[in-house]
Amino acid sequence: MQVTVLAGGIGAARFLGGLVETLASTPEDPSITVIGNTGDDIRLFGLQVCPDLDSVMYTLGGGASEERGWGREDETFTVLEELRAYDAMPEWFGLGDRDLATHILRTQMLNGGYPLSDVTAALCARWKLPVRLLPMTNDRVETHVVIDDPQSQSRSAIHFQEWWVRHRAEVPAQEFLFIGANEALPGPGVLEAIKDADLVILPPSNPVVSIGPILAVPGIRNALVTTKAPIVGISPIVGDAPVRGMAHKCLEAINVRTSAAGVGAHYGARSDGGLLDAWIIDSLDAATAGAVTELGMHCETMNTLFDEPGTARTVAARAVEFAKEL
Amino acid sequence: MQVTVLAGGIGAARFLGGLVETLASTPEDPSITVIGNTGDDIRLFGLQVCPDLDSVMYTLGGGASEERGWGREDETFTVLEELRAYDAMPEWFGLGDRDLATHILRTQMLNGGYPLSDVTAALCARWKLPVRLLPMTNDRVETHVVIDDPQSQSRSAIHFQEWWVRHRAEVPAQEFLFIGANEALPGPGVLEAIKDADLVILPPSNPVVSIGPILAVPGIRNALVTTKAPIVGISPIVGDAPVRGMAHKCLEAINVRTSAAGVGAHYGARSDGGLLDAWIIDSLDAATAGAVTELGMHCETMNTLFDEPGTARTVAARAVEFAKEL
Repeated sequence: MQVTVLAGGIGAARFLGGLVETLASTPEDPSITVIGNTGDDIRLFGLQVCPDLDSVMYTLGGGASEERGWGREDETFTVLEELRAYDAMPEWFGLGDRDLATHILRTQMLNGGYPLSDVTAALCARWKLPVRLLPMTNDRVETHVVIDDPQSQSRSAIHFQEWWVRHRAEVPAQEFLFIGANEALPGPGVLEAIKDADLVILPPSNPVVSIGPILAVPGIRNALVTTKAPIVGISPIVGDAPVRGMAHKCLEAINVRTSAAGVGAHYGARSDGGLLDAWIIDSLDAATAGAVTELGMHCETMNTLFDEPGTARTVAARAVEFAKEL
Repeated sequence: MQVTVLAGGIGAARFLGGLVETLASTPEDPSITVIGNTGDDIRLFGLQVCPDLDSVMYTLGGGASEERGWGREDETFTVLEELRAYDAMPEWFGLGDRDLATHILRTQMLNGGYPLSDVTAALCARWKLPVRLLPMTNDRVETHVVIDDPQSQSRSAIHFQEWWVRHRAEVPAQEFLFIGANEALPGPGVLEAIKDADLVILPPSNPVVSIGPILAVPGIRNALVTTKAPIVGISPIVGDAPVRGMAHKCLEAINVRTSAAGVGAHYGARSDGGLLDAWIIDSLDAATAGAVTELGMHCETMNTLFDEPGTARTVAARAVEFAKEL
């Protein structure tokens, strides 16, 4: 059974942990391919940082910080402290010492001419990942956020990380731009992984800035619309609020209501030219199940909060069942 | 008073500490320019490492490890541990976390197009150095060591750091090559610092692999031979052995006897077309003073072991006196 998952950062990574556990007990030989968002990537201090790819890699490799939600466990920040002593910019991005080793090696390989897909595979080899992690593209795609700059009073576009980390998404986003996406090619294996899948999953990632950039790479949306595999999504919105992160700030900017039904409608039903065959929403949003069904997709209501142990596995198991039902 | 010092790593750095102290108490407005060896420089994990420049910078900036003789004090090695977990090569070079911040910033600036001299000045700004530190060249010069490879049984050339750090200089050196030196230009300010000096000092650095590469940059040796300033050297050999490091392994390769007189003869007397007006040797080598004088240079005999507090200052003070006497 071939399962393909479009992934942002920590929300997707935790779901994937449950999916790996679920499929480990299937009799069929399961194989999981993860298509990772690279729109968040940023070059800091000359080093290429891929936050979403690394969140998946560290989480599934057993090296992620559970508490922090990004970066490595048992982390120290000595190098960053020294960079600050040199007045190196930017001063608002946190990079741990363990994490830095990943960025140093990645940058060395990229500067040596290897594509990001090869570099990612080389880094993942250490972590013995139970999934195949593919960057959505080997080309440069950067999510920028259009804001009304509070200092200059003028409209400007800043890197997503500056908006997210430095401004904590508190400056209203007017628009999201996926710079370079129009010219980007899907990474090696990406379209095949969607086309040949038995099941495609949209985990509870930010629909705008995690899944959005993946869908912006020409060819990927069409591969999803046309794949024979059912596509099952899990709502990242529970009780009209994001489970984690600041997805509501992103959804506002694109005029999507921050609700399970709102995001379901944003993705759209496949029966209606959209992406979803089924949408798994949290029990807290049970009242909205009717509205979801009316969109033309199956709706499943269950506990989706991964903070409780076993939930990710149960949700993943339900998504896998859909592959047989749909 | 303008003093110009050709410098290798820790031996030069400790001497410079004494020189700074000495000149701080002169009534004349003293200025010290250090011409640093970059032949030891090596790119590791994509990062440009300049061991000798950094030894001078950290030592004079108060951030060097006294015990280790290289790198930063209060150092940790978390990033290196992680690089090793990724099986990153080479595995034989030690890079501390604090030290890495320097290499990360240096590489970022070099990759941004800044010459090493500007980058070095930018890094030194943090450390508020009491000297001006100039790389001998902005061009790539790399010291390679010709060895009979114990594995392949064939003659090959390896980077100096591989010979020094990995093989601990135990594989006999057949020859030293300063790759790129023939095409290199002296760094900005280097020739002027020699020409306009009131005193030039060769501190107790390795004559072959620390001072040797500096002298191999076209124009520098000639500037020394022709400067009006007296040139005073301090022997790095005490009692027929190097004070620290493995200079004897280097001297053997170029057929220079490992003795104060041997190195004095290697540099040669200015009266004879060489570099030295005066040679300061250790009291342990007093018996060889006559042989040094016979070379055609002044010879001073005194305690030169910097391990005792105050010695570097006393030796530096004697070198400064020569500027008035010669």
